[in-house]
Amino acid sequence: MEQRISLITLGVGDVARSRAFYEALGWKTGADTGTEIAFFQVGQMVFSLWGRELLAGESGVEDSGGWGGVTLAYNVRSPEEVDAVLADAEAAGGTIAKSPEEMFWGGYAGAFLDPDGHPWQVAHNPSWPLGEDGAVALV
Amino acid sequence: MEQRISLITLGVGDVARSRAFYEALGWKTGADTGTEIAFFQVGQMVFSLWGRELLAGESGVEDSGGWGGVTLAYNVRSPEEVDAVLADAEAAGGTIAKSPEEMFWGGYAGAFLDPDGHPWQVAHNPSWPLGEDGAVALV
Repeated sequence: MEQRISLITLGVGDVARSRAFYEALGWKTGADTGTEIAFFQVGQMVFSLWGRELLAGESGVEDSGGWGGVTLAYNVRSPEEVDAVLADAEAAGGTIAKSPEEMFWGGYAGAFLDPDGHPWQVAHNPSWPLGEDGAVALV
Repeated sequence: MEQRISLITLGVGDVARSRAFYEALGWKTGADTGTEIAFFQVGQMVFSLWGRELLAGESGVEDSGGWGGVTLAYNVRSPEEVDAVLADAEAAGGTIAKSPEEMFWGGYAGAFLDPDGHPWQVAHNPSWPLGEDGAVALV
């Protein structure tokens, strides 16, 4: 297995609502309005939004109905940008799950939930400077 | 918010066990053995394994204990490679959640669960040819 991920799919209750949330944050999808799946190009990978029940079926799992041990993170270039992204997420209809604070690992971070409760940590990690394209490279 | 993801973190019960599973599939981490977190470079992003309880706390969520609506996918270049990756995952200690079959969307896919039950779809999607580096590019 090559060291790569092709897609991350979030199961959602309403693709149109979820899509509108990510579009409000500035993301762009080529999907037609009203389609039952929305794909977003993220680097070498695709982020997709699809009905949660369908995703559970295709994954061969039972749905617990809540959070299941997966968190995404979006790293930024300054503590101020953490605050700004969290404010944008809240304005777009997200929920602040963790107000930003200094972290034990030396950075500054908070978290928001998307309309389906999927968490995103928004972090400034001074040990992991971002590339010009936003890439994170482990040393 | 730029259209990118910095990290995907899977909450796990035992980082050493989970790390050994992904290493058995061929992935490499620079983390010291015995550390409480393991990072893997995947393209412009980082995939990490961390204690599920700690991850729930840092994400500001309650843990449902099961699957929570997120599935990763690993796309490959042929149907035969789907079968091979699923066999490798099972040999490494994963569980086959969906035996591979022809999919309604025109490809061939199955799914395995990692040792903590996190699902990975393994798919050949003829509509999405992979780049030399394995990248998926939406048209």
